[in-house]
Amino acid sequence: MTANPTDSMELPRFCGIPTFMRLPQATGTDGLDAAIFGIPSDSGAPYRTGARFGPNAIREMSVMLRPINPYRDMLNVFDHLRVADLGDTPVVPGYLEETFTAIERFASNIADAEVLSCAFGGDHSVSLPHLRAVARARGTVALIHFDAHSDTWDTYFGERRDSAGTPFRRAAEENLVDPSKSIQIGLRGSLFSTTDISQSRALGFEVVDADELLLSSVDALADRIAARVGDAPVFLSFDMDVVDPAFAPGVQTPEVGGPSSFEILRLLRQLKGINLVGCDVVETNPLYDGPGKITALLAATVMAELLALAAHMRR
Amino acid sequence: MTANPTDSMELPRFCGIPTFMRLPQATGTDGLDAAIFGIPSDSGAPYRTGARFGPNAIREMSVMLRPINPYRDMLNVFDHLRVADLGDTPVVPGYLEETFTAIERFASNIADAEVLSCAFGGDHSVSLPHLRAVARARGTVALIHFDAHSDTWDTYFGERRDSAGTPFRRAAEENLVDPSKSIQIGLRGSLFSTTDISQSRALGFEVVDADELLLSSVDALADRIAARVGDAPVFLSFDMDVVDPAFAPGVQTPEVGGPSSFEILRLLRQLKGINLVGCDVVETNPLYDGPGKITALLAATVMAELLALAAHMRR
Amino acid sequence: MTANPTDSMELPRFCGIPTFMRLPQATGTDGLDAAIFGIPSDSGAPYRTGARFGPNAIREMSVMLRPINPYRDMLNVFDHLRVADLGDTPVVPGYLEETFTAIERFASNIADAEVLSCAFGGDHSVSLPHLRAVARARGTVALIHFDAHSDTWDTYFGERRDSAGTPFRRAAEENLVDPSKSIQIGLRGSLFSTTDISQSRALGFEVVDADELLLSSVDALADRIAARVGDAPVFLSFDMDVVDPAFAPGVQTPEVGGPSSFEILRLLRQLKGINLVGCDVVETNPLYDGPGKITALLAATVMAELLALAAHMRR
Amino acid sequence: MTANPTDSMELPRFCGIPTFMRLPQATGTDGLDAAIFGIPSDSGAPYRTGARFGPNAIREMSVMLRPINPYRDMLNVFDHLRVADLGDTPVVPGYLEETFTAIERFASNIADAEVLSCAFGGDHSVSLPHLRAVARARGTVALIHFDAHSDTWDTYFGERRDSAGTPFRRAAEENLVDPSKSIQIGLRGSLFSTTDISQSRALGFEVVDADELLLSSVDALADRIAARVGDAPVFLSFDMDVVDPAFAPGVQTPEVGGPSSFEILRLLRQLKGINLVGCDVVETNPLYDGPGKITALLAATVMAELLALAAHMRR
Amino acid sequence: MTANPTDSMELPRFCGIPTFMRLPQATGTDGLDAAIFGIPSDSGAPYRTGARFGPNAIREMSVMLRPINPYRDMLNVFDHLRVADLGDTPVVPGYLEETFTAIERFASNIADAEVLSCAFGGDHSVSLPHLRAVARARGTVALIHFDAHSDTWDTYFGERRDSAGTPFRRAAEENLVDPSKSIQIGLRGSLFSTTDISQSRALGFEVVDADELLLSSVDALADRIAARVGDAPVFLSFDMDVVDPAFAPGVQTPEVGGPSSFEILRLLRQLKGINLVGCDVVETNPLYDGPGKITALLAATVMAELLALAAHMRR
Amino acid sequence: MTANPTDSMELPRFCGIPTFMRLPQATGTDGLDAAIFGIPSDSGAPYRTGARFGPNAIREMSVMLRPINPYRDMLNVFDHLRVADLGDTPVVPGYLEETFTAIERFASNIADAEVLSCAFGGDHSVSLPHLRAVARARGTVALIHFDAHSDTWDTYFGERRDSAGTPFRRAAEENLVDPSKSIQIGLRGSLFSTTDISQSRALGFEVVDADELLLSSVDALADRIAARVGDAPVFLSFDMDVVDPAFAPGVQTPEVGGPSSFEILRLLRQLKGINLVGCDVVETNPLYDGPGKITALLAATVMAELLALAAHMRR
Repeated sequence: MTANPTDSMELPRFCGIPTFMRLPQATGTDGLDAAIFGIPSDSGAPYRTGARFGPNAIREMSVMLRPINPYRDMLNVFDHLRVADLGDTPVVPGYLEETFTAIERFASNIADAEVLSCAFGGDHSVSLPHLRAVARARGTVALIHFDAHSDTWDTYFGERRDSAGTPFRRAAEENLVDPSKSIQIGLRGSLFSTTDISQSRALGFEVVDADELLLSSVDALADRIAARVGDAPVFLSFDMDVVDPAFAPGVQTPEVGGPSSFEILRLLRQLKGINLVGCDVVETNPLYDGPGKITALLAATVMAELLALAAHMRR
Repeated sequence: MTANPTDSMELPRFCGIPTFMRLPQATGTDGLDAAIFGIPSDSGAPYRTGARFGPNAIREMSVMLRPINPYRDMLNVFDHLRVADLGDTPVVPGYLEETFTAIERFASNIADAEVLSCAFGGDHSVSLPHLRAVARARGTVALIHFDAHSDTWDTYFGERRDSAGTPFRRAAEENLVDPSKSIQIGLRGSLFSTTDISQSRALGFEVVDADELLLSSVDALADRIAARVGDAPVFLSFDMDVVDPAFAPGVQTPEVGGPSSFEILRLLRQLKGINLVGCDVVETNPLYDGPGKITALLAATVMAELLALAAHMRR
Repeated sequence: MTANPTDSMELPRFCGIPTFMRLPQATGTDGLDAAIFGIPSDSGAPYRTGARFGPNAIREMSVMLRPINPYRDMLNVFDHLRVADLGDTPVVPGYLEETFTAIERFASNIADAEVLSCAFGGDHSVSLPHLRAVARARGTVALIHFDAHSDTWDTYFGERRDSAGTPFRRAAEENLVDPSKSIQIGLRGSLFSTTDISQSRALGFEVVDADELLLSSVDALADRIAARVGDAPVFLSFDMDVVDPAFAPGVQTPEVGGPSSFEILRLLRQLKGINLVGCDVVETNPLYDGPGKITALLAATVMAELLALAAHMRR
Repeated sequence: MTANPTDSMELPRFCGIPTFMRLPQATGTDGLDAAIFGIPSDSGAPYRTGARFGPNAIREMSVMLRPINPYRDMLNVFDHLRVADLGDTPVVPGYLEETFTAIERFASNIADAEVLSCAFGGDHSVSLPHLRAVARARGTVALIHFDAHSDTWDTYFGERRDSAGTPFRRAAEENLVDPSKSIQIGLRGSLFSTTDISQSRALGFEVVDADELLLSSVDALADRIAARVGDAPVFLSFDMDVVDPAFAPGVQTPEVGGPSSFEILRLLRQLKGINLVGCDVVETNPLYDGPGKITALLAATVMAELLALAAHMRR
Repeated sequence: MTANPTDSMELPRFCGIPTFMRLPQATGTDGLDAAIFGIPSDSGAPYRTGARFGPNAIREMSVMLRPINPYRDMLNVFDHLRVADLGDTPVVPGYLEETFTAIERFASNIADAEVLSCAFGGDHSVSLPHLRAVARARGTVALIHFDAHSDTWDTYFGERRDSAGTPFRRAAEENLVDPSKSIQIGLRGSLFSTTDISQSRALGFEVVDADELLLSSVDALADRIAARVGDAPVFLSFDMDVVDPAFAPGVQTPEVGGPSSFEILRLLRQLKGINLVGCDVVETNPLYDGPGKITALLAATVMAELLALAAHMRR
Repeated sequence: MTANPTDSMELPRFCGIPTFMRLPQATGTDGLDAAIFGIPSDSGAPYRTGARFGPNAIREMSVMLRPINPYRDMLNVFDHLRVADLGDTPVVPGYLEETFTAIERFASNIADAEVLSCAFGGDHSVSLPHLRAVARARGTVALIHFDAHSDTWDTYFGERRDSAGTPFRRAAEENLVDPSKSIQIGLRGSLFSTTDISQSRALGFEVVDADELLLSSVDALADRIAARVGDAPVFLSFDMDVVDPAFAPGVQTPEVGGPSSFEILRLLRQLKGINLVGCDVVETNPLYDGPGKITALLAATVMAELLALAAHMRR
């Protein structure tokens, strides 16, 4: 199977039904090294909703991306990684439990084939069933988590255990992630309780808040992340609200005072030696993006950098 | 308790925290004839979501409305009807069952006090728990249902019985509404199955589709509605998508080819002799409304006409 | 002086700094039959503001209009009427009295030269100083007033006598308009008091409300207007909110349930034998118009029809 | 080949990469009765541009449509017509001639296979190469043309013979359409010259302007169209600006004062006995559509009605 | 009186009529340490208008904020400061003088009770009557003024002494502020005259322009501000245009090339030992904010930081 | 000829038909030192289109700019440089060759008079005919090129030699620019081929990519640019996508991860001793700008800085 994107120097980017980066569509994982798919669920969103339209919004803007990554020695990502767009998982709006079951089943087909599993959200609750599929197939993972919020609350709205605010506590409880090899980056803003951040540390996660992120050297931070995860299989979860809303207005829980897209992308581009087995880019909500659709473009670019990270490992 | 709105000839409409029509806020029903409240749930929405922001969007635009209704003999609605804004029901995003319980409990406080219960949605699924509260307190109701869709499907997304597409089948099954005294108005557009409309008739509802609505005399239609419901207690459910999306772009399931706001308002203004005990105006989604916010303004105006209908009865 | 618009079959409409219908700019009235100008004041707006940007928004969309009017025997408006765009009057934001002085001075230069005075608002308060200039030069005028509101209140916000809600009471008091030859068309919606409409009639205006407008024959209504104004000098004031907000969302006080643009334009196109000496098209607010800018296009079209009405008289 | 759309009662409409009406994608015409494709060219647009994004915007909204058409006896369109989405033709932005060559080549594959050729524009210039392909394969066609403009100018911008304003003069000159069996419906608005409409008649087209359309009986008009085209092979070209911009703000040359979507859809639904061999729905420009995307939804609905017209013939 | 916000972990943030940070509403100052209120006047705006809608737009977004401030030792602001939302001051659109009288009267009720007076604008002219109320009750204040513009012009539009460009010259003239203890931060951009900045210095203000702000150490600058104001009672006036329009597009006089929200928030969070008696956050205009509403969110966050500054002092 | 802008302290900025910075309009170059004009062509745009509306969008926002530049010793630009707005060049949509001819002819009138030629695009293809006019009159120029992309591809879409991606290769081939004295600044993002950047260097251009730009000292970089161009006549071409899309969302090919407007403006303000003979600011597309119109404001500000650079030289 070839997996080269349509050549935008030949056929204009606006021609054709958009897949991620104009990659081929596929219905299975045969011959693939990595699979892109959407998880269009926002039933776990505690405030803004509409992230169900995130995956297609990202696909639409991703046609602007080109295959060569100049930040990793002019790497052609698709020379080293056969990738296809597998469409979206099923979901059941308003029924979180059934939605989680459907997501896990879809993602298991990918993870069980030992194919790199790359998802677009959807709200952050979708990381939990995705992690269930990946961890069952690949073992407990190290988590690199970019977010303005810790998402390690215990319950929400009374005793609800599943929401966009709780996936990583569940993941730790279920042994899907190993907090001692995991790191959360970019936390900031006002808190519900004095323990919102310490609860992550109590679970064992390392936390780098936004102040530390913005005042640190990128090289040192990239090394620190690599040291934290070591050679464990890694799941990288990227919540778009980690960047300042000036750079990503189209998110569900914006938090002002964050890093720029340049600052975050430089960090991603410095990451090396990561054994990536799964990743997601979540919380893109096109209803809150402006006409320039810069949030969707940034989400697509983040995923392209993650593919480049994986391709770089394989070269 | 006085229930006069703030006078916009004295204090500009943009001054102050907006309640419906600048009415007083209240936490209970003491001294009220009618209670306005929001049901900000969109967990039952099968396609677009965001109607959770509907009630406050409608409040914001409702400040443009004035108390005198020239279509009912210069009636001052609030001379005859003491009304307050009771805020919103609780909801639990992503958990429909718990949300329904919370809605029913909130609405029961109103219905049990025999106060006219007036809600803003939210998606159309919220009519079901609202009807449960009203029917338990007031008895089985006649339903006047304005909508582009019948909302009488049995299940959605596999075996899910609750969604914005199913409330009125449930209501008929639970004997909350008496289909033989009920009427659906405005249905149109493409269908999932050949029985989408006949299923309503099979349940006993009278159906007036959009073609018939647009080609009929308003007077005759108003008489027909009044004859259908007779002197039964009436619940009027108004889905904003019944009007053409040119007049209400901010809805969740737009259906082109519908009536104008003039055509629908004239019909509402002709209704007489209706024993209204509950009503809702649902499916307003401000994320899809344009900057002019005309959908929210129309939703507010429809509710004001329903209050005038009730006030007219009491005069 | 020639006054032909730039030919859009030769030079694309988006080329060049936009004037009304791509007409020449002028600084005085020499050689003109009609003068177009903007009155960018919104200091009299009781609710929404931003109509100060109306004139340029209308100029921008007016480049889409073409010189031949097929509704008046393929009349080339500019063969019969030499027209130029005189730019905008000065205004003083936040100081209504000084603003009125500046408007009246500007408009007097036009009216004193017996040039047809054609203004774009701005909020409706600007009609008053404009009428002062026109009536002083041309004598008391008959008023043809399209609007969803009567704008004949006495005061607003306590004892403020000038606002977008009061100009025509002032105009009647000052003998600028002769109510016995004047007519208001399109009034509708909820009212502040039971006398909102009767106050117009008490002043002597004839009133055609929206229901009557929508249910009448256009021919009969055009005749009725012509009969009402007779051969008096006429000022036609067109508030964009007279049409339904589906057709004009970009207004300051939208009122749902109104006529379509077709219905209003047909009426304008049927008008004949009117001795037009001044006119305005007011309350266009581009901040509330959607991306299609249909309100500004309609405002431009209405003005083009008024120019055609004047040109038709002169042919 | 089966051609049933994805069932939206099972899988939510926002799940998956959108094709027209959730139909299967195909790369050729094998086994098809009708082929849907986009022509994303706006290089011929004399004013607004961006219709290159029209086809995908329409696909996105078309997922809201359902397969059963209640206006033609509960017809399931896809029981009688095997349809697939063939993606988009190539285009060369800024090079009209090369673009036309690419379009004609793509459309010829469909027309030569005697498959019903159904395109989304793109600006109206794309109808010309499409007609070349269809007429070469099927013979000179009768044209049913819905539009606010005649599009029969000779040249534009000096001596340019190809633009969105000229395709049907070219088509008549090249004998692609037979004007004596053709009809233009909905023309209105200001004109460049006194012959803008008579030029169509001089070419032999029958013309029904917007006033006549709005004041006529739908049944009589449907019969008149059917009589005009007789049993000739028919190409139906639908410019979205034929409806009022309140119903279709997202177009390139809006013209106020037009019919509603209900009025146009009723006419389409009354058409019978038409031997449709090709059609297009053009000039949808999502950059000017509001957040409700009602123009794209209407464009999709119009195409669904055209498929129903063809399916009805085959039943 | 308790003043705890509604708990967003229990009741979703979109439930209920929004007050600032979901605080209780109050009609007087009894039992309060701080009072939040809106001043919805934009009659002093020399260019863009619409800031009258600022206070409610900020309330709407402020529901996203949580009570614990991690930048001041996990301070729960409301443990130390009893706060309520008092709604809006009256205003008289188009009549600046009367508006100022109404604002001063409203604010005096707060200042006379020695309650911290916290206002949302409105345009910057509203700071003058607010300062009059505060200075009369608390004595001449030190001013900490964040702004891209000095707002110390003498007159505007001829001899108008009141506008959004003049409040701080008036305040100095009236001895409401002591320039020798005051500082202006963030000035930048093109100027009307060569003395636009030196006029501030001539009045006695210290000025830190945007270049100096961006190239300085935050710690040093925070110390410098604290040293400047000493132990005088302080009024902090925050014009949202001080940040770059990428971070605050919804302002009335945007000035490109400014600091990020992170840079400004870090400075506010470093401030210590300030005897705050009044503050405002002005010039938020939701009509120019994008759908993400990031300007309103930033304005709310700035006010939350000012409350934390005051709460920190009291702890 | 005087060339002072309208005084915005006297006449509000929203009064009058907007020209660049409220400068006088002119039809020729008599008495001018610099001429501003628009090139409203987007026929060369390979992806997004609509930059044809860029020049008027920039004019509209440029009224916010004031004449004094504080970054160059309180320079009043118009004391040293007589400037007027010459309107727009003709263009022929869809016909690139004819468009280029029209642009070159228009620009030659300016360049031949040795007047500083300052254009707003339009897409980047328009720099080529502009450079042809300037280089023929002034000799081969040194190019200072700000852009996220190199725009030195050879062909696009098959063998098309003219597009927004190719102008500077053409300019080098035609000896319009001397690459050995030229520099490209800000390149970043994914690439079509491994040689996208080296192709610029192979042509002789110096390249400073975004990483180097963001991590360099502004002073050193300004010196490096000055050294590179020496005393050659300079053309400065500024593609708005060089800044991050958070600061300029309204562009045609956004590229995330770029510099802020502060960072770029500081560099422009540090430039000294440049013999500027022509410049352009291109790729502003208002259809993708948010309601705050910050891209157009930044484009206007960049041009004002370029005028200040030229005025500074002449002082």
